[in-house]
Amino acid sequence: MNKVDETRSLIIQTSLALFNKKGYSQTSIQDIMEATGLPKGAIYRRFKNKDEIAIASFEFAGSIIWKHFFEATKSKVTAAEKLIAMCHVYQDAVNNPPIDGGCPLLNTAIETDFGFPELHDKATEAYNQTLFFIQSIIDEGIRSKEFRQDVDSYSLASFLFSTIEGAVMASRLSLNNEHMLHSIEQVRILLQHYSEKNQG
Amino acid sequence: MNKVDETRSLIIQTSLALFNKKGYSQTSIQDIMEATGLPKGAIYRRFKNKDEIAIASFEFAGSIIWKHFFEATKSKVTAAEKLIAMCHVYQDAVNNPPIDGGCPLLNTAIETDFGFPELHDKATEAYNQTLFFIQSIIDEGIRSKEFRQDVDSYSLASFLFSTIEGAVMASRLSLNNEHMLHSIEQVRILLQHYSEKNQG
Repeated sequence: MNKVDETRSLIIQTSLALFNKKGYSQTSIQDIMEATGLPKGAIYRRFKNKDEIAIASFEFAGSIIWKHFFEATKSKVTAAEKLIAMCHVYQDAVNNPPIDGGCPLLNTAIETDFGFPELHDKATEAYNQTLFFIQSIIDEGIRSKEFRQDVDSYSLASFLFSTIEGAVMASRLSLNNEHMLHSIEQVRILLQHYSEKNQG
Repeated sequence: MNKVDETRSLIIQTSLALFNKKGYSQTSIQDIMEATGLPKGAIYRRFKNKDEIAIASFEFAGSIIWKHFFEATKSKVTAAEKLIAMCHVYQDAVNNPPIDGGCPLLNTAIETDFGFPELHDKATEAYNQTLFFIQSIIDEGIRSKEFRQDVDSYSLASFLFSTIEGAVMASRLSLNNEHMLHSIEQVRILLQHYSEKNQG
């Protein structure tokens, strides 16, 4: 990696930490300059404006979260184990989420609900990719007869994803990870219910 | 209601609509003046600052949401019907949520995660009250033997609440209410699983 790339990476990583905690609108170029120790010119030579940094930071956030999802699921054998492992990525949502400040998808979805349509589109794209990944794990479980054949994999994936995101919010709001753990427990019970072995 | 109260109500209602869409930090007193048509003095005679308007608006939001929850559940007989009815309050999260802009609890929780601790505390309080309300419906269902006696009402309530909030985010992000409907469907299946009749 050459020097130019290192500076660009520093800007992206530092900005992500600021954006994911304070929000895009509350983070200024001045904040990024102070946190990186870089002069304004070093930033503007690499990015047209704050929006461009925000897009690059959100993409970088996605790569971090994907790494966590892959790491969590790769050693798991059954689909149910993989789904539960994905939930556990946010088991310490309060103190140690994959990225400081909570879930960047959730934070970005809320902040860009009215405004910054380009970033909102990026968030929708990330949402759809993750949804597809969860659905593919469930489909694998249906094919292998781990889950019942009548399971609606899209509906279940959508539900699982919503539950994780809501539990991140609940845990961080109340400063108590128990909400994430309760959601994981209920998901586990639902997945057992869908288990082929329980079909009777 | 006298004239002073009407003006105060106008400020609170108008500000809530702005805050729930644009966020607190992105809404200025100037925005509130323009949206209400009131001069600065009329606002500052009633509220010390924007934070005080934000607190009053969030409390007003709570009263609206509670009305929706009560209306939705009052005619329902079983606990399961009441819980599903609560989820349906956000069935059109995209176009017609109880308050324009989505769920004020979710929006406020995310925006005040780092900053505005007084409003964050208000959000935590609202979260706990709603959680308690959901738990009391489940407890009622356990007492009446609608649900199995081994159901953990607190865990189930926490999970249900997280699922609704996450599904509001997912539906609004993707501009598609199907995510709320999928979550409701999976919740319905889990509640059936918990039904005393299914104990076998």
